[in-house]
Amino acid sequence: MYNTRIEKCKRLMEEHKVDLSVLTPGVNMYYFSGFADIQMDRMLLLLIPVRSEPVFISPELYQGHIVRDSGIVDVDIRVWKDSDNAIELLRAVLSEIEFTNSRVLVDDAMWAIFLLPLKEILRDCSFHPASEILSSLRMIKSQEELQNLEQSAAIADEVFKDVICNERLTGMTELELAAEIRHSMSQKGGEAAIGALVASGPNGANPHHHPGRRIISEGDAVLVDYGCRFNGYWSDISRTLVCGTASDVFRTAYDAVQRAQEKAFQAVRPEIPASEVDRIAREEISRAGFGERFIHRTGHGIGLEMHERPFIVAGNDLILEEGMTFSIEPGVYLPGQFGVRIEDIVVVTSQGGRRLNKSDRNLRVLGNEE
Amino acid sequence: MYNTRIEKCKRLMEEHKVDLSVLTPGVNMYYFSGFADIQMDRMLLLLIPVRSEPVFISPELYQGHIVRDSGIVDVDIRVWKDSDNAIELLRAVLSEIEFTNSRVLVDDAMWAIFLLPLKEILRDCSFHPASEILSSLRMIKSQEELQNLEQSAAIADEVFKDVICNERLTGMTELELAAEIRHSMSQKGGEAAIGALVASGPNGANPHHHPGRRIISEGDAVLVDYGCRFNGYWSDISRTLVCGTASDVFRTAYDAVQRAQEKAFQAVRPEIPASEVDRIAREEISRAGFGERFIHRTGHGIGLEMHERPFIVAGNDLILEEGMTFSIEPGVYLPGQFGVRIEDIVVVTSQGGRRLNKSDRNLRVLGNEE
Repeated sequence: MYNTRIEKCKRLMEEHKVDLSVLTPGVNMYYFSGFADIQMDRMLLLLIPVRSEPVFISPELYQGHIVRDSGIVDVDIRVWKDSDNAIELLRAVLSEIEFTNSRVLVDDAMWAIFLLPLKEILRDCSFHPASEILSSLRMIKSQEELQNLEQSAAIADEVFKDVICNERLTGMTELELAAEIRHSMSQKGGEAAIGALVASGPNGANPHHHPGRRIISEGDAVLVDYGCRFNGYWSDISRTLVCGTASDVFRTAYDAVQRAQEKAFQAVRPEIPASEVDRIAREEISRAGFGERFIHRTGHGIGLEMHERPFIVAGNDLILEEGMTFSIEPGVYLPGQFGVRIEDIVVVTSQGGRRLNKSDRNLRVLGNEE
Repeated sequence: MYNTRIEKCKRLMEEHKVDLSVLTPGVNMYYFSGFADIQMDRMLLLLIPVRSEPVFISPELYQGHIVRDSGIVDVDIRVWKDSDNAIELLRAVLSEIEFTNSRVLVDDAMWAIFLLPLKEILRDCSFHPASEILSSLRMIKSQEELQNLEQSAAIADEVFKDVICNERLTGMTELELAAEIRHSMSQKGGEAAIGALVASGPNGANPHHHPGRRIISEGDAVLVDYGCRFNGYWSDISRTLVCGTASDVFRTAYDAVQRAQEKAFQAVRPEIPASEVDRIAREEISRAGFGERFIHRTGHGIGLEMHERPFIVAGNDLILEEGMTFSIEPGVYLPGQFGVRIEDIVVVTSQGGRRLNKSDRNLRVLGNEE
C-alpha cells in the first residue's frame, strides 16, 4: 500500500516538475510510510526523490521504530547520533539526488530549524508547500480510510450520549467537563483525545475558547466541540445545549444555525464547488439577521489531520468529488451572551452527502424536559 | 512583565543586529505576550521589530482571545478574515517595519507555510532560528517559573506514588497503564497530559517506544516516562520497575544507570559546561560495560517546552548558570531484553544541583517485597 502511494506521489511530482519531496514526522510521513511520530527538535525526515528511492534521515534512537513501522519495502535509513551534526548528513544525502527542475516540496508544517538549512543547501531550488500538490491524493479517501473516519465519528457520538447528555452539567467547571469528555474518548479507544472545547455562557461567543475554571450555571448555553483519532483518522463534532431555560434570542439563533447546517448538508454532491456549501450556510444565517455574527468558514476537510483540505470557505472553487470528507459547522456568536455551533462530518458520495455523525441536532434543554 | 521581557528581547536583538523577530503560536509567543495557543493552518504571528512596537497578525476569530490573554500593554492587533488573503496583510505590516541589518529571527518551529511567504516577501534578509539568540532569556528561570516547574514535578511524583506504585501492573496493557497515568495527571491539575510512555519487557529497548497493546507480564522491566504542564511549565520523569523477579543482567544495568544518574547530578554546579554532565554519566555507564547501549544524550533543558536548551550532550560547551533547568536521564537499552532509564529534573543553584523530582530511585520489584 505504501509503495503504491509513493508511486502515485512520484507521478504527481513528475507532472508538476518536482524533483524532491521532503516530509517531517506527521501525517504525510504516516500516509506515505506508515511511520507515525510528531515533529521534535531532532531531525527526522523522509525524502522522496522523483527519480530514486525514498530515504529516511533518522536519529539513531528512532531507527528501530522506523524499521518496525515503515511499510515501505527495503527502505533506506541513514542514521545520525546525538553527537553527530545532522545537517552534514542531510547535505550528503541531498548530494546523491538528481535535480533537473530545481523544484522541491516540503511538508506544510516543516519547522524552520529544518527548512532553513534545507534551503541553504539547495539554494538554487524553489520551495513549495507539499499540500499544494500532494493533498489531491489525501483528499480522496479510500474505503478503509472512510471506515476509520466512521469509527472515529462513532466514538464522538457515543461520548455525546454517555457523558454530555447524562451529566447535569450545571455546577461543573468547563475544565471538569472537558476532562470527562477526553477521558471518555480515551476509554472508548480514541487516540490523541487532547482537544475538548467546552465554552459556557458568554465564553461561547469565542469560537476557539479554551475551557477554564468557569462554573456552568442555570441559563447557560454550553458549546462542546471535540474529537479524537481512530487508527490515525480524526473525528470532530460540535453541539450546543442549554441548562435550564433558553432565551428567545438563543432559540432564534439556534434555529438559524440548525437550518443552515441542514441546508448546507443537503447541498453536498459531487461537482459543486466547496464555496457553494459555504454560501448556502451563510445565506441562511444572514436571512435570520445573524450574518455578521457567523465569523468563520463553514468547514474544513478532515482525515489524518483534523484540519486539512478541502476548506469550505468563500473563494475556494475546488470542485467536490466522491470520497472527500469535511465538516459542516455554521455558528452564531453574540459577544457577552453565547455561541451556537452545530458540526457534523460529511462524506461526499455519488448520491449526495452522508453524515458520519448521528447525534441529535435538535435543541436540548437540560434539567427541564420538553 | 511581558513588556519587560520584550524590552530584554529587543536589547538582545540590537546586540545581534536583528531587525525583526517573528513568532508563531507556541512557547515563545506565550513567554513574550501571555497569549497561548498551538500553531494551526490559519496565520497567527507576533512580530517584534527592534525599533517599533510589537504587532499581532491574527485571524478574526482569535482576536478576542488575544485581547483577553495578551499582557502586552496597548498591543496592536491586525485582523484578517477567513475570506481575506493573510499573506497580503503580512506584506502590508512588514512594509511598515524598518530593516537596516536585514536580519530576521523566526520561531524554531515556524511552519513552512508561514516561513516560505515570509522569506519571499523579505527576500534580501537572512533568517535565523530564534532560539539561537532568544533562548538565553528563557534558559534562566525566574523564581515564579521555578515554582511552576516544582509544582509540575510534584504532580509527576504524586502520579508515580498513586498510580504506578499502587497498581499490580501485570495483566494491564501498556496503553491501559498510559491512560491511567494521563488521567491521574489531569486530575491532579496537570495540563497537556498527553505523553505517557510505557514500555514493557523488550519494548523498553526502544527509548521512544509508543505504548501498545502488549500485556505487562511477570519478569518484565517496565519503563515509564511521562510529564504534564503546570501553568505552562513541564515536568518529565522516568522510572523503571520490575514485575516479579529481576535478572542479574537487569540488576547490573540498573545499578550502573542509578550510579550514573547520581554522579551526573552531583557534578551539577554553575560554571561547568553542559557536556561535562553528559561525560560523567557516560563514563559511569561505560565502566559497567554498557557504554554502547547508552544511545542518547544525558538530558535536555525544560521549561515552557519539554525539550529546550540547554541540551546535556557531548559537544555542548555551554556553561551552566544558576536558574537553568534540565533533565538528567541516563539509560541502558538491550535489544530484545529491556531498557532502564532514571530521569529527574534538576535546577542549577549556587550550591550545586537541586532535584525537583523526589520519587525513589532505588530498584522497585513489584509483587515481591524485598
